[in-house]
Formats: sequence, structure tokens, C-alpha cells
Amino acid sequence: MNNQQTVPDFTDVKAAHARLKGRVVRTPLLRCAALDAAVGRPVFVKAECLQTTGSFKYRGASNRIMQLAEHERAAGVVAYSSGNHAQGVAAAAAEAGVPALIVMPKDVPAVKSDGVKARGAQIVYYDRISENREEIAARIAKDRGAVLVPPYEDPMVIAGQGTAGMECAEQCQEFGVEPEALIVNAGGGGLTAGIALACEALYPDAKLYTAEPDGFDDHKRSFAVGQKQRNTKLSGSVCDALLTPEPGDLTFAINKRLVSAGLSASDDDVFAAMRFAFRHLKIVLEPGGAMALAIALKGLVPGNGPLCVLATGGNVDPALFARVITA
Amino acid sequence: MNNQQTVPDFTDVKAAHARLKGRVVRTPLLRCAALDAAVGRPVFVKAECLQTTGSFKYRGASNRIMQLAEHERAAGVVAYSSGNHAQGVAAAAAEAGVPALIVMPKDVPAVKSDGVKARGAQIVYYDRISENREEIAARIAKDRGAVLVPPYEDPMVIAGQGTAGMECAEQCQEFGVEPEALIVNAGGGGLTAGIALACEALYPDAKLYTAEPDGFDDHKRSFAVGQKQRNTKLSGSVCDALLTPEPGDLTFAINKRLVSAGLSASDDDVFAAMRFAFRHLKIVLEPGGAMALAIALKGLVPGNGPLCVLATGGNVDPALFARVITA
Repeated sequence: MNNQQTVPDFTDVKAAHARLKGRVVRTPLLRCAALDAAVGRPVFVKAECLQTTGSFKYRGASNRIMQLAEHERAAGVVAYSSGNHAQGVAAAAAEAGVPALIVMPKDVPAVKSDGVKARGAQIVYYDRISENREEIAARIAKDRGAVLVPPYEDPMVIAGQGTAGMECAEQCQEFGVEPEALIVNAGGGGLTAGIALACEALYPDAKLYTAEPDGFDDHKRSFAVGQKQRNTKLSGSVCDALLTPEPGDLTFAINKRLVSAGLSASDDDVFAAMRFAFRHLKIVLEPGGAMALAIALKGLVPGNGPLCVLATGGNVDPALFARVITA
Repeated sequence: MNNQQTVPDFTDVKAAHARLKGRVVRTPLLRCAALDAAVGRPVFVKAECLQTTGSFKYRGASNRIMQLAEHERAAGVVAYSSGNHAQGVAAAAAEAGVPALIVMPKDVPAVKSDGVKARGAQIVYYDRISENREEIAARIAKDRGAVLVPPYEDPMVIAGQGTAGMECAEQCQEFGVEPEALIVNAGGGGLTAGIALACEALYPDAKLYTAEPDGFDDHKRSFAVGQKQRNTKLSGSVCDALLTPEPGDLTFAINKRLVSAGLSASDDDVFAAMRFAFRHLKIVLEPGGAMALAIALKGLVPGNGPLCVLATGGNVDPALFARVITA
């Protein structure tokens, strides 16, 4: 499958799962009596913050990069991201032994650019105000003959993210549990789409929900009307990982069919979820990685059967985390 | 095996492993490129902070309590602890449906007594200065006809802690790795002893080391002279989980034969390890749970082959954790 416009299916997710086995961390599915009590149903937390690079993004990036053709390897890959996708692409490229170039905003926090550099990737900076990162990345990729690895609008990236869903299903089976519902943090919707494909095949009766910040609920509104809706603003939530302008075309093609509904909660709810995860689960979650847990803790996910929560990332500024856990 | 004075062996650890399967969390063995680079060898972190109750203590407590005779269940169990063992016993008793009573000091932090109460256990308070907790617990156990669950001087508790070693060995096999060395945080030495028995059988060539705070290195000094040595003080390190007066008789009988040497590091080293675990592994470690990682990061563990680090607990005060990660 090489056509960037093809909608991936379960076959692609299964192939990605086989391809990535032993290369990605099989992150644990955590249980906790305090969480079950707080939510009022059995809850299982897929701790993707423990994934290589601290987020699920390493899965999709690895799946794409492992499928580079031999003649594509020398020029390597290009990506644009100031967040978790940048770290995922840099690490997956380093692991595969191919060069990576990441387009990042000039004002990116040092901890993020340092993470990319430490993984051996090159950085090209752009100005958020006057320049368009997609255009810059596309031009560089073309000039270098490199392959662009988009954060979600790519069938191989979507299939790679879906491996988190495959593992989640395997782990539910090990627990002897059939999930009634799953909730997934949604930015561009790539993880949701990958998990949706896995769920459709493995747990066709399970309901799937997206998790977004209040006021940045483009997926939720898009599902409600059956057409892609845009967010009216692009800043103003602490969940930086979830602030995309609108769902992707590829991801929405999958999600509009397979997601039951979108759900949302506030930044304060997210802080409460980060505190809960610190205290009871002993994992570090970033705000965007804790939204699904926040919505679960608020009791907003319909039903009372087993619920799987995707805890998608843990790359959080220490000062923010310190404020949150001591609040 | 019911004689409290019997030294357990590998058969007991294997039986515990079968008994606890599906009841304890199979905690992940985490890898991280930044950790390998920092230590200069492949490092595998067994994240026991993700265990039920936030520490490995749940393993030993569960193994003991699951072996209560039918006539012992009504009166239940008694334990003395202000820390992780208290939470482990309370949770294991609740899970088994037997009553638990925990003897705790009057000045125990509310978060710790709350954790025990939330798990349905009863608390009896004592005065640290004027009273002896072992005597109180023994008297209460006798009066009630209850079974005392000691923190480490018990063959079933030691065998239960050893299940962490069994899992670690299985997970190393899944990674296709044979560990050259393992390092384990040591208070009373129960986890070390359990893991030592597993290692002796499964990885007889691997070297085992204990991890203790500088100045509270009773195991290290005991190994050096081949006889139990006492710590000269009982406070003055932030690693509260590791401040026991001396090795146990049962644990030392095993450890003096199977442990290569004791190693130690400072509180500042532990803080650095907690920061590292927050930043790179996305797990929450308490000071006593991070000592083995601290010693690994200092490069103090002999050899350069694969090293397994037991990260034993994550029950840390939020204010302390916040100070550590922002330092």
C-alpha cells in the first residue's frame, strides 16, 4: 500500500502489528481499584506514555519509516511538528538508520528541540506568523527527494497507531474482559482511526469515543453533523497535543463511520486526571495525554461495562506538572 | 510450607508465581535509549511502582494471605508498617476477603493511613517513642487469633516478592536478553532474597547487587564481613522505605550466599534518578524506589552487559516530587 490517499483497513493494522512487534513497547494496560471506584465501572488504562519517546506517535512513525523503499532510505524523511510526532519520527528514523529533518517553529521550547537533536535529527526552524510549516516541509522533502511523514494524514501512520488498539485487545483478552467502550484523545484523529479499525474487527460491539478539550471539539461537532467542522480558535487550552484545526480527511473517513460520539472536558478536569494518574497509577501524563482519563473520571462515557482509556502521552513540562500535583 | 523459620527456595517462588498470576500486575520491563546512553550499557527497568498499591509489597502480602488456612480466615491478618507493606497487606486482605489490622505510628502522614482505611483495614496507633510496634502487633495477633504478616521475615512473603524476579526473567527472554547483573533496593532484604532465588535458578551467571542509601548500608557491610551488621542510625535519609535496622535472619541467610555485593548512593543521587524517571521513563518513583536506578545512573554497577534495575515503589509525597522534578 503506497498511495497516500488510500483509506487503510484492518489488514494494514494487522500487518503493522506484526511489523512493529518487539520494536515498540507493549505498553501495559493498567488497572486500579481506586479508579474503578471513582468511575463506577471497570477501567483499563493503556499507558502509552510509557511508549518510546513518551507517546504513541512512535508507532505510526515507525510503521511508515520501516516501509521506506530501499532507494528512499538515503534521503530519509521530513516531518513538521513541535510536539510528540517530532520525537516519534526522530526516534523511528534513528532506529531505522535513515536521516530525519524536522520543521519546528522558532519559538519551540528547548526541551523539545533538544529531544529531536539528541535523537540525531536535523531541525529547520520557521516563523509561526509569516510561514506555513506544511509548505516548508513539502518543499524540503521535494528538494531532498525525501519522504514526508505527516502526523496523521497517511495510511501507514494510521495503521501504525492502530497497533495500540491491537495490543489493547490482546490485553483485554488476557484479563478475560470484553470492553464495552473505548475513549481516545483526538487531535488529528489518527490514533482514533487506527484503533477504530482494530476495534471494528476485534470488538465490533464496543463503542468508541473521542476525547477533546472543551471549545476545541472539532471531532465531536463533525460527528454530530456528519461533516468536518473546524475549531474557531487554535490556542487557549493547555492540551497542546490536541489543538488541530480540524479532523483529517483520511481519519474522518474512518472515524465518522466507526466513532459513536465525541466527548469533551475542561483544562481543570485534565489537571484532576493528571493528579489522579500521579497518585494512583504512578504514571506521568501530559495534559493532552490525560483528556480521555479526565472524561472517564467525570463519568461522561456512556454505559457501565468495562472501559478502556488511552493515556496517550507523558511529555510535560516539569514546572507545570509540579503545579498540577501540588494544587 | 508453614514453618515461619524455614528458608524458602526456588520451588516456593515458582509456586508463588503460579498462584499470583493474573492477581498481581505483570509490571512492564521498560527500556529507553536515553537510559542506555547515560549508563553505557543496555538497561531494563522493572517498573514495580505500577504494581497494585504502588509497590512490590503487594506481591508478598498476597502470597502470604492466599495461603491462610480456612480456619484462619475469619480472624484475618495483622501487620505493622507505616509504609508500602501496610498498603500491600490491606489491599491483599481486601482482595482475599479477610479482615486486616495494621499497627501504625500515631504521627503517620494522613495519606498513608487514608490509603489503608480506603482499603477497608482497621488501624491501631502506637507511640514511636514509648512503644514497640512488633510487640504490639504480636500481642494483637495472639489476642485475635490472627496471622501476623511480617514485612520480610516470612518465607511466603519472600517467595511472593520473588515473583517480580520470575517476571523479570520471562521479560528478559522476550527481549532475547540474558542479564549480566540485577540491582535491587534493599530495606529488610525480602525482595532481594526472593529475586535471588529466582535468579539462581534461571540466570545462575547473573550478578545480584543490593542498593541502599549511603550511611544506611547494613546489607553492604554485612556482605563484606559475612555477618549481619546494624545501621548506626535510623533516620537521616529521604529513602524512608529502606531504613531498617539490619538485614533479616531469613533474608540474610539467602542473600549472603547469592548477592555479589552491596552498593550505595546519596539522597542527591536519588533525586537525580527520580528526575530521570519522570523525564525519560514517565514513571513516578519514591526515593526508596529510585535508589537502584540512582546507583545504575552513577555507573557503580560492575560490568557493561545488560542490567536489570528494580524500581520498587512510587508512593511519594506530591510536594517532595514537585521539588525534585523542578530542581
